[in-house]
Amino acid sequence: MSDPLDLLETADRRLARGVLAHDRRSLAKAITLLESTREDHRARAAALLAALLPRAGGAFRLGVSGSPGAGKSTFIETLGLYLLGLGHRVAVLAVDPTSAISGGSILGDKTRMERLSREGGAFIRPSPSGGLLGGVAHGTREAMLVCEAAGHDVVIVETVGVGQSETAVAGMTDCFALVALPNAGDDLQAIKRGIVELVDVVAVNKCDIDPAAARVAATQIENALAMLRPHEQGWVAPVVAVSALKPQGIDEFWRQCLRFRATLEASGALAAKRRRQALDWMAAIVDHELHARFHAHPAVKREMGALREKVAEGAMTPAAAAAALLAAASD
Amino acid sequence: MSDPLDLLETADRRLARGVLAHDRRSLAKAITLLESTREDHRARAAALLAALLPRAGGAFRLGVSGSPGAGKSTFIETLGLYLLGLGHRVAVLAVDPTSAISGGSILGDKTRMERLSREGGAFIRPSPSGGLLGGVAHGTREAMLVCEAAGHDVVIVETVGVGQSETAVAGMTDCFALVALPNAGDDLQAIKRGIVELVDVVAVNKCDIDPAAARVAATQIENALAMLRPHEQGWVAPVVAVSALKPQGIDEFWRQCLRFRATLEASGALAAKRRRQALDWMAAIVDHELHARFHAHPAVKREMGALREKVAEGAMTPAAAAAALLAAASD
Repeated sequence: MSDPLDLLETADRRLARGVLAHDRRSLAKAITLLESTREDHRARAAALLAALLPRAGGAFRLGVSGSPGAGKSTFIETLGLYLLGLGHRVAVLAVDPTSAISGGSILGDKTRMERLSREGGAFIRPSPSGGLLGGVAHGTREAMLVCEAAGHDVVIVETVGVGQSETAVAGMTDCFALVALPNAGDDLQAIKRGIVELVDVVAVNKCDIDPAAARVAATQIENALAMLRPHEQGWVAPVVAVSALKPQGIDEFWRQCLRFRATLEASGALAAKRRRQALDWMAAIVDHELHARFHAHPAVKREMGALREKVAEGAMTPAAAAAALLAAASD
Repeated sequence: MSDPLDLLETADRRLARGVLAHDRRSLAKAITLLESTREDHRARAAALLAALLPRAGGAFRLGVSGSPGAGKSTFIETLGLYLLGLGHRVAVLAVDPTSAISGGSILGDKTRMERLSREGGAFIRPSPSGGLLGGVAHGTREAMLVCEAAGHDVVIVETVGVGQSETAVAGMTDCFALVALPNAGDDLQAIKRGIVELVDVVAVNKCDIDPAAARVAATQIENALAMLRPHEQGWVAPVVAVSALKPQGIDEFWRQCLRFRATLEASGALAAKRRRQALDWMAAIVDHELHARFHAHPAVKREMGALREKVAEGAMTPAAAAAALLAAASD
C-alpha cells in the first residue's frame, strides 16, 4: 500500500511530515489550514487530514468544564505540567462559541498558561472562531486528530460551559471532568445545568484556602451526583479535592481519570464510545451543512423575513410557512 | 375579505363548520385528516388548518409531565372534571413517541379517563403515532390548534416524559406542570432529568395517603427547585400537595397555573413565548424535512452503510464521509 502522504501536494506533504515529526510550527500551520474557510484550502485540508488520520486516535482525550472563577485555566496548566513531568506530550484545545462574538475570548488569550506554553512537549491552541457551536466544535475535533498525529498522547479540551458547548466537548472526549469551587451553592448550580450525565470526574479546586469547607463541598457534590446520576451507568463520579496553585491533589485527580478510562477500556465501552462519537459527528456535519445550504439559498433568504413575520403574527401556520420555504429552495 | 372556509372543498368546508360548531365527531375527523400521510390528504389538511387558524390560539395551553406511577392520568382526569365544573371546555392531547414502537401505548388506551371522556365539553385524543418525536409533536401541535378552533379553552398536553418529549411539550404550551410522588428520591430523579428549567408548577400527588410525608416531599422539592432553577427567570415554581383521587388541592393547583400565566401575560412574555414557539416550530419542521429528504435520497441510502462502516473503523474522517454523502445527494 502506498504512503497516503504521497497523494498530497509538495507543500502539504512537507507540512504533514512536520506534524508527524512533532514540529510545533507545522502543527500550528496544519490547524490553521483546517480552520480556513477558503474553498481551495478546504480541499487541501481534507486531503491533509485523510493522510494524517491513520496516525491519530492514540491520545487520552480529556474534556474539562467549570464555571468562571473556578480556576479552570490554572488547573489545566498545573495538570499539563504534571503530565509533562510524567513524560506525556500534552495538547490543550478549546471549544468556545462565544469567541466569534467577543472577538477573542478568555480562551483565546495568548498570555494564558504561560508556563505550560513555554514547554516543548506542550501545544496550546485557542478556540477556532467558527461562529456557530457546530463550526467551532468541528474545528476543535479536527485539531484534536492533528495533535494526535503530532504525537500528543494527552489532549485536553476546555469548554467555556456556555449553552451546549459542554455536550459538544463531552461528545469528543473519553473522560469529562468538572472543576468546581468549594462553595456548595455554586457547585450545585454548575452541576444542574444538564451536565450531570456528562461528568465522569470532579475536581474541587482551591481546597488549600479552607480545607474544611472543601471537604464539606466535596461530600455535598458527591451526594448530589450519586442522587442525580442514573445508577445504570455503573460509575459514580469521584470528587477529588485539589489546589491548582499549591499544587495539591493533581496526581489523585489524574489517577481517577485513568481509572475511569481503564474501566471503559476493559468492557470495550471506550471503543464503542469513540465509534458512536465519530458517527454522531458525521451526522451532525450532514445536518449542519443541510441547514446552512438551505438558509444560504437565495429564494429562502428572499422569503424568510415575510414568512417569519406571518408565523409570528399567527396569520400562517408554521407548517405552511415551512412548506413554502422548502418549495422555494427546490426551485 | 372573503371567508377562508369558502376556499375549501365542499366536504372539508362541512368539516370545518362542524369543528367551529363544537361538534366532537367533526373535530375527531379533522385531526385524523391532519395526521394522514397520504399526499392528497396532506394538501386538504393544510387548507383546512389555514381556514381554522384565525379561530385558534384562545386556549390556556397546559403541559403535564410526571414519572410512571405518579398518577398523571387520574390527575388530568380530575383536573379536567374540575375545569368542566368551572364552565371550561377541555381537550386532552398527548405526545408519546413510544406509541409507534409499542403499537398503542398507555396514552392511547381508550379506557383511560373514562369519566372525563363521557362529558360533552371534553375531548380526549391519544398521541399520534408519527414514529419520530418530531412527527408526533407536530401532530399534537396541529391537533391543539383545531381543538382551540372547536372552542376548547383549556388544552392539556400530556407527555410520557421519555427523552426529549418533555422539551417538545414545554415548547408548545404556556405553562408546564410536573406531577410528582411524595417520595423525595423519586421526585429528585424526576426533576433532574433536564426538566428543571421547564417546570412552572409542581403537583405532589397522592398526598392523602400520608399527609406528613407529602408535606416533607413538597418542601424538599421546593428547596431543590429554588436551588437548581436559574434565579433570573423571576418565578419560583410553587409546589402544591394534591390528591387526584379524593380529590384535594386541585383548585389550588389551578390557581397557581392561572397565577403563572397572568404573570407572563402582564409582562408581555406570553405573547413573546408563543411567537418564539411558532418560529421554533417552523425551524424544526424545516430541519426535520431536510433531514428526512436527505436520508430518503437513493444515492444516500445506497452509500450510507459503507461510509458509516469506514467512519466507525477510523478509516475515514466523519467530515470526509459527510462530504461524500452530501455530494451523492446533490447528483
